[in-house]
Amino acid sequence: MNLNAYLSGYADGEGCFCVTINKSKRHVFGWEIRPSFAVAQNRDRAEVLWMYKQRFGCGSIRSNRSDKTLKYEVRSVRDLVERVIPHFEKYPLLSSKRTDFEKFALVCKKMSCGEHLTEKGFREIVEVVFTINDGKRKYPKEAVKI
Amino acid sequence: MNLNAYLSGYADGEGCFCVTINKSKRHVFGWEIRPSFAVAQNRDRAEVLWMYKQRFGCGSIRSNRSDKTLKYEVRSVRDLVERVIPHFEKYPLLSSKRTDFEKFALVCKKMSCGEHLTEKGFREIVEVVFTINDGKRKYPKEAVKI
Repeated sequence: MNLNAYLSGYADGEGCFCVTINKSKRHVFGWEIRPSFAVAQNRDRAEVLWMYKQRFGCGSIRSNRSDKTLKYEVRSVRDLVERVIPHFEKYPLLSSKRTDFEKFALVCKKMSCGEHLTEKGFREIVEVVFTINDGKRKYPKEAVKI
Repeated sequence: MNLNAYLSGYADGEGCFCVTINKSKRHVFGWEIRPSFAVAQNRDRAEVLWMYKQRFGCGSIRSNRSDKTLKYEVRSVRDLVERVIPHFEKYPLLSSKRTDFEKFALVCKKMSCGEHLTEKGFREIVEVVFTINDGKRKYPKEAVKI
């Protein structure tokens, strides 16, 4: 069986391509843009999370606070661009979640080139981020001022 | 990409191999044993449900009461035995959900042979059913008397 296709199917249901934006004094413009790919599962059937970790060769598996689930997560922009995104480009999602993935990939690639460190690039990335996952976010777009 | 592997991966996360047991005057021994394979998804990214329906050539897609999700479901024992189960035997689940699938398949095959219509077969099937999905069920095993 093709494990790559299996992992894409699993991620179509259970995976999340997220980009959070949080206030941060340590970051240029006062905001941290943090993309991540994550898959969570009940601890008693979390075997597939280890398959992601092995296949992608990056990321980490941690307990959620509730301790009933485990979460596989990749936060490194470099790992996302070099390992995670190429997988989903080769074995694409078949649901409309693919649209979110494509925006997510765009954000990661821009960040990988350092575009978020320029005012123009930062603004462009924020515009894209607010269209991912129906735009439900901690801060409204108007709050992310630079 | 291999759609069969994709559908198995998706089902590993989102699918349910369930057997419900309910009181029924219309059934032998006063209980209906009803296996089903189901996959639910938010309406706005439910494309994969249609792929199951097309690939398996059986089952139906319906709105859940909440109307926010759609559910693909196969209830026909014949379709389960002839179409759904062979798929997951050829493209197996990779998590421990596979154990539930194997018990589910056993129940379906026994029912397909009419074993649930004999007292011995009925008791055997009930024993298996109560070990699926951690045995969380509407009626306790002791209640299912014949």
